Amino acid sequence: MTLNEAREKLMALQVKLAAYNHALGILYYDGATTAPKGTAANRAQTMGVLSEEVYTLTTGDETVALLEFLDAHRDALDEKERRQVELLLKDIRRMQKIPMEEYVAFQRLTTESYDVWHTAKETSDFALMEPYYEKIFAMNRKFAQYCAPEKDPYDYWLNEFEEGLDRARCDAFFDTLRAHIVPLLRAVQQKPQLSDEILHGSFPAAAQAELARRVMSVMRLDPAHVGLGETEHPFTTSLGSHLDERITTRYVAEDFSSSLFSVIHEGGHALYDTGSDDALAYTALDGGVSMGIHESQSRFYENLLGRSRAFCEYLFPVLREVFPEQLAGRTAEEFYRAVNRAQPSLIRTEADELTYCLHVLIRYELEKRIMAGELAVHDLPREWNRLYKEYLGVDVPDDRRGVLQDSHWAGGSVGYFPSYALGSAYGAQFLRRMRESVDVDGCLRRGDFAPINAWNREHIWQYGCLYRPGELFRRAVGEEFDPTVFTSYLEEKYSALYGL
Amino acid sequence: MTLNEAREKLMALQVKLAAYNHALGILYYDGATTAPKGTAANRAQTMGVLSEEVYTLTTGDETVALLEFLDAHRDALDEKERRQVELLLKDIRRMQKIPMEEYVAFQRLTTESYDVWHTAKETSDFALMEPYYEKIFAMNRKFAQYCAPEKDPYDYWLNEFEEGLDRARCDAFFDTLRAHIVPLLRAVQQKPQLSDEILHGSFPAAAQAELARRVMSVMRLDPAHVGLGETEHPFTTSLGSHLDERITTRYVAEDFSSSLFSVIHEGGHALYDTGSDDALAYTALDGGVSMGIHESQSRFYENLLGRSRAFCEYLFPVLREVFPEQLAGRTAEEFYRAVNRAQPSLIRTEADELTYCLHVLIRYELEKRIMAGELAVHDLPREWNRLYKEYLGVDVPDDRRGVLQDSHWAGGSVGYFPSYALGSAYGAQFLRRMRESVDVDGCLRRGDFAPINAWNREHIWQYGCLYRPGELFRRAVGEEFDPTVFTSYLEEKYSALYGL
Repeated sequence: MTLNEAREKLMALQVKLAAYNHALGILYYDGATTAPKGTAANRAQTMGVLSEEVYTLTTGDETVALLEFLDAHRDALDEKERRQVELLLKDIRRMQKIPMEEYVAFQRLTTESYDVWHTAKETSDFALMEPYYEKIFAMNRKFAQYCAPEKDPYDYWLNEFEEGLDRARCDAFFDTLRAHIVPLLRAVQQKPQLSDEILHGSFPAAAQAELARRVMSVMRLDPAHVGLGETEHPFTTSLGSHLDERITTRYVAEDFSSSLFSVIHEGGHALYDTGSDDALAYTALDGGVSMGIHESQSRFYENLLGRSRAFCEYLFPVLREVFPEQLAGRTAEEFYRAVNRAQPSLIRTEADELTYCLHVLIRYELEKRIMAGELAVHDLPREWNRLYKEYLGVDVPDDRRGVLQDSHWAGGSVGYFPSYALGSAYGAQFLRRMRESVDVDGCLRRGDFAPINAWNREHIWQYGCLYRPGELFRRAVGEEFDPTVFTSYLEEKYSALYGL
Repeated sequence: MTLNEAREKLMALQVKLAAYNHALGILYYDGATTAPKGTAANRAQTMGVLSEEVYTLTTGDETVALLEFLDAHRDALDEKERRQVELLLKDIRRMQKIPMEEYVAFQRLTTESYDVWHTAKETSDFALMEPYYEKIFAMNRKFAQYCAPEKDPYDYWLNEFEEGLDRARCDAFFDTLRAHIVPLLRAVQQKPQLSDEILHGSFPAAAQAELARRVMSVMRLDPAHVGLGETEHPFTTSLGSHLDERITTRYVAEDFSSSLFSVIHEGGHALYDTGSDDALAYTALDGGVSMGIHESQSRFYENLLGRSRAFCEYLFPVLREVFPEQLAGRTAEEFYRAVNRAQPSLIRTEADELTYCLHVLIRYELEKRIMAGELAVHDLPREWNRLYKEYLGVDVPDDRRGVLQDSHWAGGSVGYFPSYALGSAYGAQFLRRMRESVDVDGCLRRGDFAPINAWNREHIWQYGCLYRPGELFRRAVGEEFDPTVFTSYLEEKYSALYGL
C-alpha cells in the first residue's frame, strides 16, 4: 500500500462511516418525530443491524491495518489527516475492547429505552424505566472498564464527553459555581421578585412555530440545510454531514418562552455544526468537537445573547407582531426582566440562567454516586427529590417533573450533564474575548448576528474537531479556562436586575 | 455447512437486507417529507454508499454460495424458505449482471433526479428534467440488456413489476379496455353531465387531516403501525417490515376529494402490506408481491369501495361533521354523483374511475415507444399533449399538469404504470368473488370494514410474496384473469349513473 492509496482509503472509510451515521441518525430522528408509536421494536432491530455493520467495519482487519499504517507514517500526513487517524484509532481501540454482542446489545437497549422513556415520562412511572436505567448504568460501567480498566468508570465517561475532564476537575469546577451561585441566589431571593407574567397566557402552536422560524432566520440558520421538528425533548442532530442539520422544539401552549429559548439553544448547536469548514464534510473532523464546546455555543446564543437586554429590545417588536393580542400594552423591559427572573424550579431546560447550574450539579452528583456504586438506581427518585429540596428549595410533586424529565440516561448517556455547566462557563469567556473586536450589544440591538457568527466561525466553528477542546478554547480566548469569568458575569447581571 | 446452519444464515441475511431497506426507505421518506431543501446531495451520497453495501452483501461470494447451497437442497426446505431462496437468487442473478458502479450510479441518479423533479414540476420546466429522463430511460434499457439480453428491454421491466407481463399481453389488455371504455365514455359525454360542485370550496388543511385520520380509522389501519405524512405526490412505503408503514397525502385547499381518495388509495396499499403474516417480517416474503396486486388493493379501496353508493352513504355524515359549513344543505347522493362524474381531465391521480385507464394507456404507449427507440425523450411533452388530445380530448396547458405530473420516471421506474390499470381490473374480479361470501354493500353502509378486510387478508394479504401474482390471483378468485369483468362493472355503473 502506498501512502497515497492509504490516504484515499482513509477518505473512503470516513465517507462510509458518515453514511452509516446518517442512516442511524435519521432512524433516531424519525423515531423521535413522526414514527407511529408501535414501531420502536422494528426500528431497534434495524439500528442494531446497522450498528453491528459499523462495528465490523470499524474493527475489521483491513481498517485496523490501514489506520496503523497511516499512524506509522503520521509525519507524512497533513494536520487534518493526522487528527482523523487519531480520532478513528481512538474509536477503534475502544470498540476492539467491547465485545460486539455487547456493543450491539447496547444500541438496541438504548433505542428501546428511549422509546419506553416517552411513556414513562407521560405517565410519571419510574418503575417502568428502572430496569432500563439499571442496565444502562451497568453497561456504562462495564464499557468503561473494558476501555480503560485503569480508570474510574465515571472519569472515563467524563473524559469521553469532554477530553481532559475527570471528577477532580469537575468537583473543583462545581465547587466554584456553588460558592458563588448559592449566596447570589440567596441575596436575590431576599429582594422583591421579578414578574414573568408577560410570558404566560395562550399561545397557539402555529404562532409559536412562526416565531421559531423568524428567530432561526435572525440567527442566520440556513433553511436549506437546517430543519425544524417537534419532539417531547428538544435536540439537535447532524445527518451524514454538517450540510443536513435538524433541530427540534416543543410548543407549550401557556408559555411561549419555553419553545423560544429552546429554539435559540438548539439553533446555537446547529450554527456550530453547520459552521464546519465544507472541506471537513464526511470526515471524522466534521461538526462539533466536544459536548462542552457544543453547549458553550448553544448556551451562548440562548443566554449570553438571547437573554441580554440588547437582544430583548430587538426581539420584543417581533414578539408583538407574532402575539399582538397577548402582548398588548407590554414593554421590552418587562420581557427582559421576565426571562431573567431567578426562580428555583423543577425543570432544567426551562430554568433561568442563575439557577440552571444547580440543576446540572444535582445530576452530576447523582451520576457520580451511581457510577461509584454508592447509590442504587432504585433510590434515584428519592435522592433526586432530596437534592432538589436541598439546593433549590423546591418540592418535586412527581417523577415526570423530577427524575424522568431528561432523556439523556434513557438514551444511554452518562457523564454528559456536566457539559451544560461547563459550556455556560466557557461561553462567558468567549463573550469577553469577542467584545474586544465586536460591538456585541450594538449587533444584538439591530438583530444583526453576522459579525457575532463571523467571530464564532473564525475562532471556533470552522475547525470542527481539528483541535482538542482545551486547545481550541485557548486558541480562541488566549488564556486558560477560568469559571470565575462566568460567575462574575452572573453576579454583575443579577446585581443590576435585582438591585443588590 | 449443515442445512440447519444454512437456514439460520438465510434468515440472518434477510434480516440484514431488511435493515438496509429500512435505512434506504427512511432516507427516501425523509427526503420526500421533512428534509430541508438543500440536503439532497448529502442524502444521495449516503444512499449511494448504502446501496453499494447492499450490492456487495447481495453479490458477495458468501451469499452466493449460501443461496446456491440452499437451492441445491430445495427439496428439504419448506415452502416459505424455497420461495425466499428463489426470490433472493433472482435478485442476485440480476445484480451480478449489473456492474456495481452502474448500480450505485443509478441509485444516486434517481435520488438526485427525484429531488430535481420537485423543482421542475413546480416551475413547469421540462428542460430541467430532460437530461435526467434521458439517463434514466437509457440506464433502464442498459440494465434490462444486462439482465435479460434475449428479451426486449421494455418486456423485461414489465415482467419485473408484474411477473408474466409483456407487451403482447399488455397490448391485448389495453385493447380490451379501449374497446369498452372509449365508446362508453362517448355515450356518457352525450348525456347531461353530473355536477361535482359539492367537492369545491375552501377546505382547511387541518380539517382535511382530521378527515384523513377518520377515514384511516374506518379502514382499520392501525395507527400504532401506519403513519400519515404530507408530500407533493402521495405514496406508501414499508420501513424494514410490514410493522412500520407510512402513507402520504397532499391537501388541496379547494377540493377535499383529492386528499380523501388519495388517503383511501394509499390506505389500501398499507392494508395489503401490513396484512402480511407476522411470521414473514424481515424476510424476502414480507409485504406485497407485485405492483399489479398492490394496485388491485389500493384501487379496490379507492374506487370499488370508496366510490360506491353504499360507502358514500356511510361517509357523507362524517363529511358533514368535518365540513359543516361547506356541506350545509348537501346530500349523500350529490356526493356520490360528484365523485363519479366522468370528466376527461389532465391529472391521472385525480381522474375518475372511467377515464383513469386512458391516462395509464397514454403513459404505457409513451414508455413503450421510448424504450423501443421510436420516441426521443425530447419529444415527450409534444407526444404527451397530442395523446391527451386524442384519447381524452383535453388540451394540456403546461408540463406541470402534463408530462411532469408523475414522479415515477423521475424516481427511476419505467414499466410501472400498466400496474395501475391491471390492478383496477384485478380488483373487479376480487370484488365479484368476495360478494359470494361477504355482504359488501351492507358492510360499507355501516362503515364496517372488518369482514371485507378479513376476506382480503385470508385470500391475499397474509401470503406476502409467497405465491407469484398469477397463482395468488387464481387461488383467490378460482379463475383466470378476465378484464371484461372490470369493463362490465364500469358499463353497469356508468349506465346507471348517466341513464344510458
